[in-house]
Amino acid sequence: MERPQTVDNDFLYAQIASRIEEQIKQNLLRSGDKLPSVRALSQEQGISINTAYKAYVELENMGLIEARPKSGYYVKFSSARFAKAPETKPPLKNIEQTSVGQMIAMVYQNMSEDSVLSLSRSAPPLSLIPMAKLSKSMVAAMRNSPSANVNYENLQGNVSLRKQIAKNAFNWGGRITENDVVTTQGCMEALIFCLRALTKPGDTVAIESPTYFGIFNVMLSLDLKVLEIPVDPDTGIDIDYLAQAIDKVDIKACLFVPNFSNPIGCCMPDERKQQLVTLLTDKKIPLIEDDIYGEIYFGKSRPRTCKSFDTEGWVMLCSSVSKSLAPGYRVGWCIPGRFKDQIINIKMMHTISSATPTQAAIAHFFETGRYDLHMRNLRRTLYTQCLRYTQAIATHFPENTKISRPQGGYALWIELDKSVNAFELYQAAMTRHISIAPGQIFSTDARFTNFIRISFGIPYDNMVEQSFKILGELIKTLDNIKA
Amino acid sequence: MERPQTVDNDFLYAQIASRIEEQIKQNLLRSGDKLPSVRALSQEQGISINTAYKAYVELENMGLIEARPKSGYYVKFSSARFAKAPETKPPLKNIEQTSVGQMIAMVYQNMSEDSVLSLSRSAPPLSLIPMAKLSKSMVAAMRNSPSANVNYENLQGNVSLRKQIAKNAFNWGGRITENDVVTTQGCMEALIFCLRALTKPGDTVAIESPTYFGIFNVMLSLDLKVLEIPVDPDTGIDIDYLAQAIDKVDIKACLFVPNFSNPIGCCMPDERKQQLVTLLTDKKIPLIEDDIYGEIYFGKSRPRTCKSFDTEGWVMLCSSVSKSLAPGYRVGWCIPGRFKDQIINIKMMHTISSATPTQAAIAHFFETGRYDLHMRNLRRTLYTQCLRYTQAIATHFPENTKISRPQGGYALWIELDKSVNAFELYQAAMTRHISIAPGQIFSTDARFTNFIRISFGIPYDNMVEQSFKILGELIKTLDNIKA
Repeated sequence: MERPQTVDNDFLYAQIASRIEEQIKQNLLRSGDKLPSVRALSQEQGISINTAYKAYVELENMGLIEARPKSGYYVKFSSARFAKAPETKPPLKNIEQTSVGQMIAMVYQNMSEDSVLSLSRSAPPLSLIPMAKLSKSMVAAMRNSPSANVNYENLQGNVSLRKQIAKNAFNWGGRITENDVVTTQGCMEALIFCLRALTKPGDTVAIESPTYFGIFNVMLSLDLKVLEIPVDPDTGIDIDYLAQAIDKVDIKACLFVPNFSNPIGCCMPDERKQQLVTLLTDKKIPLIEDDIYGEIYFGKSRPRTCKSFDTEGWVMLCSSVSKSLAPGYRVGWCIPGRFKDQIINIKMMHTISSATPTQAAIAHFFETGRYDLHMRNLRRTLYTQCLRYTQAIATHFPENTKISRPQGGYALWIELDKSVNAFELYQAAMTRHISIAPGQIFSTDARFTNFIRISFGIPYDNMVEQSFKILGELIKTLDNIKA
Repeated sequence: MERPQTVDNDFLYAQIASRIEEQIKQNLLRSGDKLPSVRALSQEQGISINTAYKAYVELENMGLIEARPKSGYYVKFSSARFAKAPETKPPLKNIEQTSVGQMIAMVYQNMSEDSVLSLSRSAPPLSLIPMAKLSKSMVAAMRNSPSANVNYENLQGNVSLRKQIAKNAFNWGGRITENDVVTTQGCMEALIFCLRALTKPGDTVAIESPTYFGIFNVMLSLDLKVLEIPVDPDTGIDIDYLAQAIDKVDIKACLFVPNFSNPIGCCMPDERKQQLVTLLTDKKIPLIEDDIYGEIYFGKSRPRTCKSFDTEGWVMLCSSVSKSLAPGYRVGWCIPGRFKDQIINIKMMHTISSATPTQAAIAHFFETGRYDLHMRNLRRTLYTQCLRYTQAIATHFPENTKISRPQGGYALWIELDKSVNAFELYQAAMTRHISIAPGQIFSTDARFTNFIRISFGIPYDNMVEQSFKILGELIKTLDNIKA
């Protein structure tokens, strides 16, 4: 009897590569270790020479191994050096909102300058977006609409798009229908609608620390106070800290990024997500769950969301296609649970409806299955880039540098020597046309002074490599000046 | 020597029709007057029989004259009956915000029901939108963009679109460049960004009375107080009233619709606009000028804007293509004067940027000259519809009905007998599947109880005619019940 063929040959090399990768990560294979020859691997695993070769090329692309001329393949990367993840810091007391605001404005502004290599922007580069296929979806959407998409869209959002969002929700453990979804102009608008539905000026909202600097601007503009809750790289939001804070402060809402928090990149384990939802449901505090990075996972499967543990409608999930497909389309959504009517009402007041053509195009892109295919490629590519960036930092930055090990998303969170001022590094790097995000802008009190965030969205090439060399030198110079 | 040919023959009939129309309006020709025969008109004016015939058909389409079998053409419409425009009312003291809010929600919700003939919606009907051409512009925009419009758009807005907006501004007396324009997601978002830039919760904003009900929702959601300034059908905003109010109340901003105010449809004369801008500049009070209807003029030329009199940047002009071309595209803009940086900052916080494909498509539509052509057709058609709707109301509504004479826009503001409760009429009409906007929702204190707003966007046909018959009967019934 023949065994059923379960694995497509096309993916066999990837499977082999993945096994070796696992051994390197678990430190069973260490930096400098020689790997079996291609022929030996082929015999050992019962695979063709060609497949064995492809597996090594894959690992080489990931920056995990290197081919030494006339010598064979060697392990290049070792996670041992980065055993300690960056520390988290408890919030301080003195808040200097203005100066953080000024830094944010400066970083934002420089981010999109053409002459600058942006290692500060967390978004897919053009080369990773299936532009032609997306354009085809737009053309199809124009053709398929009897009214050519000129009319106001359904207030709650394009029905086909909402159906696709509901269908995809299955992957994160959601059991929802299109009636549960409200579309928005990107994730940011979804977050703002939630905050406006839940808060009045002067109210307090709990957020992560460190957190995405865009959030501070939003809080400031809505006149909200923020309470920063520490995030652990492995377990996510510090739930005990939050529970104590709830007893002391009147928190009107929490705004967290449980999947691949920005900048730390940590993914909260399922049981912790459930714990968080239980706590908040018990206290009747709504959780605004920013899941914009949820689809960019490096593990085997899509992580669940807090929303998937939400039985009483206190979780408002917000997301978009801006990090995965087309930021320029401004297509996002909210699954607002018990606050659906308020969100629809605010949307009506604010924009009447979201743009019709872009929603229809994204719906079509989903429907054709193009999205799933694209996401598989994007995840694999970003994971490879994540590893290569990590390797480059390990190579060019000082010995005592600590690097996060993100399980998804776009960013590495890097702790430098305490003597290094990240904002000074940012300014020095800008003179060399490299943009990084200094740690100061990730808290209201600028306390992550010796941290930087590096985004690995840009494909790794010589220019990126060169930038890391320059950054490494700049860090060492700053270090010496202080010392 | 030949005289230069200044008038295209194709437009001669329209010119003749326009002259006769003027005579009817000035009451030189009265309802029931017989008009010269087609042959007589041809001889009298030195035009061809065909042109004379076309002129009469045009006037017939406008509902101004009628052909009686075997007898000739007669004047049908007389403005004499409606010599008195609807009264304006000074603001009352007791405010019942909740009940007005409930009415607004009800009217909004029913507005988009398919089975209902919506005489309450002020927007171009599908039949008046050049859908195929707009789709072509979208396809061209996708083709012309090297990045297929997937990337974040320029924060201030698509440059080509801003150039076109600046170019069009010439028509309303504006001398601006693309640097003065910030694009938004429709006019409503522009208005909200302005209000957020200028006010804090609890502040007071002056608005017109009566005014578009959407404004109340916005004010409510931003926690702003409104001060209602009466509008005169001929001269617009009561500037004296406003000047007195400024001395008594701390007004943080004014939000007015000087061109074809909704619902009255009045166009503020130029010298009054200038007066208003002078007053506000003097008092350093910003004017948010909602010019969304500015392009829908029935007169010979585009009315100027307050912005065109603004020398010191206190006027923030807001507009969009939602009333003229494609509401579903959500393409609007703001020309924020001295508040440009604040508007850009709020836009960045709120949405990062506006959608790329829709802005690019509208820019292309403008560039090709399609917009100008479309607008000429739209204005002519809407003006004709305005006259036919007026005629139908004059025919089917009670004798003492007063009708506004809008100089542009989409709406007729109708004053019924004092005994008629417009909200009751709205409810009765809904049972007959006709949606109108009751006067109560156009002020915060529901004081326009015997007014209704009828929008003439839907092409006049038997169904519309029938609806006016039904409405007329309902009014008479409501009238009798009270009497």
